[in-house]
Amino acid sequence: MKFTLVGTDLHSKARLGQVETAHGTIETPIFMPVGTVGTVKAVQQRELQTDIDAQIILGNTYHLFLRPGLPILEKAGGLHRFMNWNGPILTDSGGYQVYSLAGTRKIKEEGVTFRSHIDGSKHTFTPEGVMDIQRSIGADIIMAFDECPPYPCDFRYARESLDMTHRWLKRCCDRFDTTSGRYGYEQTLFPIVQGGVYPELRRHSAETIAALGREGNAIGGLSVGEPTEQMYEMTELVCDILPTDKPRYLMGVGTPANILEAIALGVDMFDCVMPTRNARNGMLFTTQGIMNMRNEKWKNDFTPLDEGLGGHVSTTYSRAYVRHLFASKEMLGPQIASIHNLTFYLWLVREARRHIQEGTFLAWKNQMVEQLMRRL
Amino acid sequence: MKFTLVGTDLHSKARLGQVETAHGTIETPIFMPVGTVGTVKAVQQRELQTDIDAQIILGNTYHLFLRPGLPILEKAGGLHRFMNWNGPILTDSGGYQVYSLAGTRKIKEEGVTFRSHIDGSKHTFTPEGVMDIQRSIGADIIMAFDECPPYPCDFRYARESLDMTHRWLKRCCDRFDTTSGRYGYEQTLFPIVQGGVYPELRRHSAETIAALGREGNAIGGLSVGEPTEQMYEMTELVCDILPTDKPRYLMGVGTPANILEAIALGVDMFDCVMPTRNARNGMLFTTQGIMNMRNEKWKNDFTPLDEGLGGHVSTTYSRAYVRHLFASKEMLGPQIASIHNLTFYLWLVREARRHIQEGTFLAWKNQMVEQLMRRL
Ligand SMILES: [Zn+2]
Ligand SMILES: [Zn+2]
Repeated sequence: MKFTLVGTDLHSKARLGQVETAHGTIETPIFMPVGTVGTVKAVQQRELQTDIDAQIILGNTYHLFLRPGLPILEKAGGLHRFMNWNGPILTDSGGYQVYSLAGTRKIKEEGVTFRSHIDGSKHTFTPEGVMDIQRSIGADIIMAFDECPPYPCDFRYARESLDMTHRWLKRCCDRFDTTSGRYGYEQTLFPIVQGGVYPELRRHSAETIAALGREGNAIGGLSVGEPTEQMYEMTELVCDILPTDKPRYLMGVGTPANILEAIALGVDMFDCVMPTRNARNGMLFTTQGIMNMRNEKWKNDFTPLDEGLGGHVSTTYSRAYVRHLFASKEMLGPQIASIHNLTFYLWLVREARRHIQEGTFLAWKNQMVEQLMRRL
Repeated sequence: MKFTLVGTDLHSKARLGQVETAHGTIETPIFMPVGTVGTVKAVQQRELQTDIDAQIILGNTYHLFLRPGLPILEKAGGLHRFMNWNGPILTDSGGYQVYSLAGTRKIKEEGVTFRSHIDGSKHTFTPEGVMDIQRSIGADIIMAFDECPPYPCDFRYARESLDMTHRWLKRCCDRFDTTSGRYGYEQTLFPIVQGGVYPELRRHSAETIAALGREGNAIGGLSVGEPTEQMYEMTELVCDILPTDKPRYLMGVGTPANILEAIALGVDMFDCVMPTRNARNGMLFTTQGIMNMRNEKWKNDFTPLDEGLGGHVSTTYSRAYVRHLFASKEMLGPQIASIHNLTFYLWLVREARRHIQEGTFLAWKNQMVEQLMRRL
């Protein structure tokens, strides 16, 4: 993997960059659609390319490990081939799902033992094991196995959790650096800064991780319930410590406003289930604000979903039609909404890149943060 | 509407034809995907055109009347505009759903009073009203309002039902012929032959309907539980009476084998929910036979769904991947399966046309009926 810092904004800490992977080049800042179990829910792979203009997608290690499982992924030649997505893929470490989804779990120094939320079967994730799993999935970018402390979380727990996360990180790096890619292409490992909402822990973690000199770095454990201002404070503090010549990935964030604010603080990569999850509930992000498609008010509105956004679904289907699909519980509603919201998220980061390039990012961002979050 | 009989098979009663409508020309024999509530379930309109090659789709009057309802459809400028489908549309009369879906219903000479299966609201469908409703929906081809007797059904009930259906038909024609299209294009009315499985009733109905000289004719009340052989017998009996210079539409039929056999008896148009409904349950029709995608046997089968069929989804996605999607209850499974099955049904009638043209229909049909219905 190779990162090129193409430019930096004069009026904020926003950056323009390029990440070269074995499966193609990513322009940053970028948003990564979440492809949980080997599918971005309700979206065809062709639509990811042609409608949404996705440059990289994310896969969930926990879900893929359980279904279809490694033997099938390996026989397929990795996740890219299995799901027919030839662009870059990043996998999370599975930690987040183990803590939030799995049944009874035990965290020990060695790793985490948990029960599958599907069939109750017992499994253990260790730092070494999770490196091997992500190698097998075939991700271009692999994430370190960490503990995500809950929010709120007292200082003592946060500190001890962070220390273990750092010990696990060392084991992740050792394993990763002594193994090689399964399918003939290069993979890379991003460590994850943790530390809850405690500035000194975040600083310590960011310094520890900066010193490792990996090809990219991530910020985890945010957007887990803490006030938005604290999320921004932690993000800024960490970005100011992480090396400028490596991409920075803020995990699991967030709303359009969150993404723009974090770009202004120096973040380069994002993922979030919000565009697709909200789409399935009829909630659309548009260039003019947020629309709830279950609302009666769209009943007779025959204008397109979002002319300003462009793209096939957003300019073809009317608000009245999509409202009707949700009111009738037709699958096509969530399908159209998912494509629309992801198209919007990719438009958002593309516009951000353009405004950084043109030197007008800050004013544009401040206007957009207002405009995009209002309810239509 | 204009029908041109292009040719007739020498070895069977199969026919080649063209139906010209205000929204385009249809090559017959043709299969019409069912777009229940203004959407072919799980399929985008663009996919209907580019992947599936649909030439005409069917809308359900009962469903569209309840949701989105006529005021919205009229304001949209008709169903074509509302759902963004610019090809021909045929609507059923709503009768079938009133009898099978709606709550407490009362059939009287005047019409049928029923309660909505959605909110229990009370409505009345009369022959005149149903003509007006289909005019408002904007269908290119409108179906007469009939009674579909259940199967089994005694002779007396079937005869009385048929008599009423014929009286209703007269009222349908009178209303249709004294009103005009709402949106500036021509619509046409197809009467429906009924009569259960009683040859003399079917003969009487077919003669009555042939004598009307409408632009096309339909055969209803079959594929409702009667033995397949009886369905073919009734179909043949009726086709032999209906005029040769008008298209014949066999309503709600059927399996790939049913369709091929009915083409051989002289049927030109078909519709059925089977390809989409079965798709949502993981059942695929392929050029080699039937595949249940929930079956473990596809777990490690990385070959495409159906190379012989061609088309994007059927040659891109592997059996192992689609099995995984169904096992994981991912929406993309039903989406891919729906596109695949409809692509298959349109392939089937396209191949039928080609073989009729080449004079090899009968031998091909006999081979296909075996091949397509076997379980893989
Ligand atoms: Zn995490
Ligand atoms: Zn009928």
